[in-house]
Amino acid sequence: MEKRKIAVVGAGLVGCGWAIVFARAGFRVNVFDVDPSIRAAVTGRISAALADMEMAGLVEERETIAARVTVEDELRSAVRGASYVQESVFERQDIKKDVSSQIDAVMHPQAIVGSSSSGIPASAFTEHLKNRERFLVVHPVNPPHLVPLVELVRAPWTDSAALASVRELMEEVGQTPITVRREIEGFVLNRLQGALLNEAWALFEEGYASAEDIDRTVRDGLGLRWSFMGPFETIDLNAPGGVGDYAQRLGPLYHKIALDRRDPRPWSEALIRRVEAERRAKLSPDELAERRAWRDRRLMALVAHRRRMITEEQ
Amino acid sequence: MEKRKIAVVGAGLVGCGWAIVFARAGFRVNVFDVDPSIRAAVTGRISAALADMEMAGLVEERETIAARVTVEDELRSAVRGASYVQESVFERQDIKKDVSSQIDAVMHPQAIVGSSSSGIPASAFTEHLKNRERFLVVHPVNPPHLVPLVELVRAPWTDSAALASVRELMEEVGQTPITVRREIEGFVLNRLQGALLNEAWALFEEGYASAEDIDRTVRDGLGLRWSFMGPFETIDLNAPGGVGDYAQRLGPLYHKIALDRRDPRPWSEALIRRVEAERRAKLSPDELAERRAWRDRRLMALVAHRRRMITEEQ
Repeated sequence: MEKRKIAVVGAGLVGCGWAIVFARAGFRVNVFDVDPSIRAAVTGRISAALADMEMAGLVEERETIAARVTVEDELRSAVRGASYVQESVFERQDIKKDVSSQIDAVMHPQAIVGSSSSGIPASAFTEHLKNRERFLVVHPVNPPHLVPLVELVRAPWTDSAALASVRELMEEVGQTPITVRREIEGFVLNRLQGALLNEAWALFEEGYASAEDIDRTVRDGLGLRWSFMGPFETIDLNAPGGVGDYAQRLGPLYHKIALDRRDPRPWSEALIRRVEAERRAKLSPDELAERRAWRDRRLMALVAHRRRMITEEQ
Repeated sequence: MEKRKIAVVGAGLVGCGWAIVFARAGFRVNVFDVDPSIRAAVTGRISAALADMEMAGLVEERETIAARVTVEDELRSAVRGASYVQESVFERQDIKKDVSSQIDAVMHPQAIVGSSSSGIPASAFTEHLKNRERFLVVHPVNPPHLVPLVELVRAPWTDSAALASVRELMEEVGQTPITVRREIEGFVLNRLQGALLNEAWALFEEGYASAEDIDRTVRDGLGLRWSFMGPFETIDLNAPGGVGDYAQRLGPLYHKIALDRRDPRPWSEALIRRVEAERRAKLSPDELAERRAWRDRRLMALVAHRRRMITEEQ
């Protein structure tokens, strides 16, 4: 097993992002995808992303980085000798289970396997594996080479040492790992996002505000501080006596807000159509792709800004 | 009445922030506070904030801006002739009611009065006023000269033209106004914040993650995109077919998450102590003030960054 060798299995947007994360940190990366047309696109995709990142000042020597990535035609040859395997195949339990079995059969017995699963817990697709104590969920945000957060979620049988070792690896490659201590639907990130989204959809449905005004509230209000502090630090600094003081004052208000939402309804078809109509009036279907490219440029610029801030503070 | 003359009543941190917002946009600003020691501090506070903003590249000619602000010793003289009054007194219904009456008695009959109230609706303290159709809530985020979001919330008797006129004024001075169409507890911003906080506190209480890991999840995950797009735009760009596609796929997950929280408990004393203990282990009580100054520097740098991005796009 080579400590500096990583395998990426599944080479869509997430897999290619992971390949960049590891190659940027100096690791050799073997990339595999079952679909030959996806395999054929990997090198071009990674080069294009690295070129954008170089423009934004996020990487230097992009050719050196790109050269660390090898596309393999077989899962076996990609995984062989790798100390860590990042699996990023399609999010369906039977597919995750099948691919995990294939990895299990050929992986080095000391290797660790992280799944990019955004919702399916590792216990749902790793129980039958011989190396199951070294499988866990390593859930990134898309795209992982720009958004550093990674959720580590162990199955009941995942070894603590394997978890600790992945946490260390993620820190080494510049990601921000968090540990979700037990499996839970949505893990932490999507639960937090979902709580805010559910309130946003309810306020829209009840006519309190337009989707655009709700977006403004986050973009020009809550989101500024949240992009460099979390919600706990935000409230800790928002009352003279810190978080306890804040919680005493505002806890009752937030409890009343929660009580209003004791009977949550699903987002109905009619409601979805109304939100969609408002969004499409602002951004037509054929503008979506360009807006996604804009988002990635803004993300890169923001990441570069945050890096300058942290460097200045040191 | 002078169109370019604003009165700020209540000159704590929020009131001083408002004075900067209006003076920066070229308005003359009369500031009043009932407390002479607070009045005496206004000029120094505003000068210090403007100096920081100049360092961050957010304002030029800070002395010209500061010279537009006059501290008045009487409410009557501050409000006289002003076309708009921003009231930012202590958040207590009887105080808001009393100060609103005082403003009502001396304001120009065409002037409009916005209250910085963060929770008490205008209907709770303006019903008795003779000019009540020109009173509403104009709720900023703290500090208003750095965070542009402002919630406009009318009472049932607030005139539509007054609302429209304040929305225009807020845009003119560079704030981002949203319209909350009916009064609701917590308005929009604190309801969205509360929904996320309630989930964060519950995940912490149930042992799924530390407060620090929850902060990381927002800071290095959700908060990046939310600082330049809202939650609706984020999900609109996060599925190939836009927001409708996203809602079809992920709506059921978010509904399940909401169903888990049908029985919300208040943040208990014991829970508050646990969060506080974790925060105080990371940041001692005597470091809070320096960390608040750090937050404001980071906010200023972020606002300057966003301004550069928007300029580049134009």
